[in-house]
Amino acid sequence: MSYEECIKACLECMKECNKCYHECLEEDDVKMLAECIRTLRECADICAFSAKSMQSGSPFVKQICQLCAEICQACGDVCKKHEHHKHCQECAETCYRCAEVCKKMAV
Amino acid sequence: MSYEECIKACLECMKECNKCYHECLEEDDVKMLAECIRTLRECADICAFSAKSMQSGSPFVKQICQLCAEICQACGDVCKKHEHHKHCQECAETCYRCAEVCKKMAV
Amino acid sequence: MSYEECIKACLECMKECNKCYHECLEEDDVKMLAECIRTLRECADICAFSAKSMQSGSPFVKQICQLCAEICQACGDVCKKHEHHKHCQECAETCYRCAEVCKKMAV
Amino acid sequence: MSYEECIKACLECMKECNKCYHECLEEDDVKMLAECIRTLRECADICAFSAKSMQSGSPFVKQICQLCAEICQACGDVCKKHEHHKHCQECAETCYRCAEVCKKMAV
Repeated sequence: MSYEECIKACLECMKECNKCYHECLEEDDVKMLAECIRTLRECADICAFSAKSMQSGSPFVKQICQLCAEICQACGDVCKKHEHHKHCQECAETCYRCAEVCKKMAV
Repeated sequence: MSYEECIKACLECMKECNKCYHECLEEDDVKMLAECIRTLRECADICAFSAKSMQSGSPFVKQICQLCAEICQACGDVCKKHEHHKHCQECAETCYRCAEVCKKMAV
Repeated sequence: MSYEECIKACLECMKECNKCYHECLEEDDVKMLAECIRTLRECADICAFSAKSMQSGSPFVKQICQLCAEICQACGDVCKKHEHHKHCQECAETCYRCAEVCKKMAV
Repeated sequence: MSYEECIKACLECMKECNKCYHECLEEDDVKMLAECIRTLRECADICAFSAKSMQSGSPFVKQICQLCAEICQACGDVCKKHEHHKHCQECAETCYRCAEVCKKMAV
């Protein structure tokens, strides 16, 4: 697992989460999506944090990627539940991929 | 206007916005609060950014506080509209106070 | 351990780290302080992240505080080494205190 | 100017600034690079902030990109001065490009 690849996965996940966050807030059933919105913000933010840590040569990359993997996994699970929202389904896939990549980085 | 005072206002506003964000997401009328939720996140984040810039001796403090003032003002306006939510009303006051302090710092 | 107390410790640590970062960059022996500067930035940033997570009711508070405790501990250790810089010594104390508080939150 | 293009420029600039920050801290003449290090951190952080604002449909994109353009321009100028460091020269180019793109977005 290269830093390059993990940074890419984190920035992709940050993008999808911010986009899905935006789209959730435009939906009619925002109430149903409250937990999703909350998790998406947090996932986008930890992904940005992870990318920064790898780009700037942090000595805490493993620990940060471990946390990022957990939040991405949880975010994927929350998004997955909203079957009728295509953006949530797509975001879930990106979150799961990022979780896997970060888990490998954390070893 | 001292840095000390402006940092305090920004951290106070960050706290109120994050708290109000959390409480908005628990309300029944989340749909009505979508714009509010979005603005609260952004306001909390720019307040954290401003505080950091002052604490770390940034040469861009004026410009950052100018932006922070604009977002706080807008966030106060959005929160103010939700008359039936006490947390929004309280948050609006904190946002307006922070906007004023940041405006003075930006001069 | 209340959220209130932990948020306070994190924001105090964020402030000291950003201040110490600024002061390290003004010193004559910056070369000696390179590792310190790098760790201070990261510690300030994770403290801001932790405070935000508690303020906004994140479900990941324990995990985030666990990471925050590790980074604060390491930052305290790095700062402690610079015996001739009063700001580093003071920052070390604040980092250790925050590490302890976050460790309790993480349990 | 599309959001897509501007987000790409901001994330590219964030990457280069974090990388250059890391490399500056490894150099022997860190003392000479102190201003550069400080500006690189700030530039990386505002670029991340700008990208997030566009990705999440912020109503403040213009103002944020305006600030981002100013900081990128200043960061490019600071990096440009360090002629003997290839990473600073490369980073300067990326900063200038991002400044230009953000300036167009801010209109």
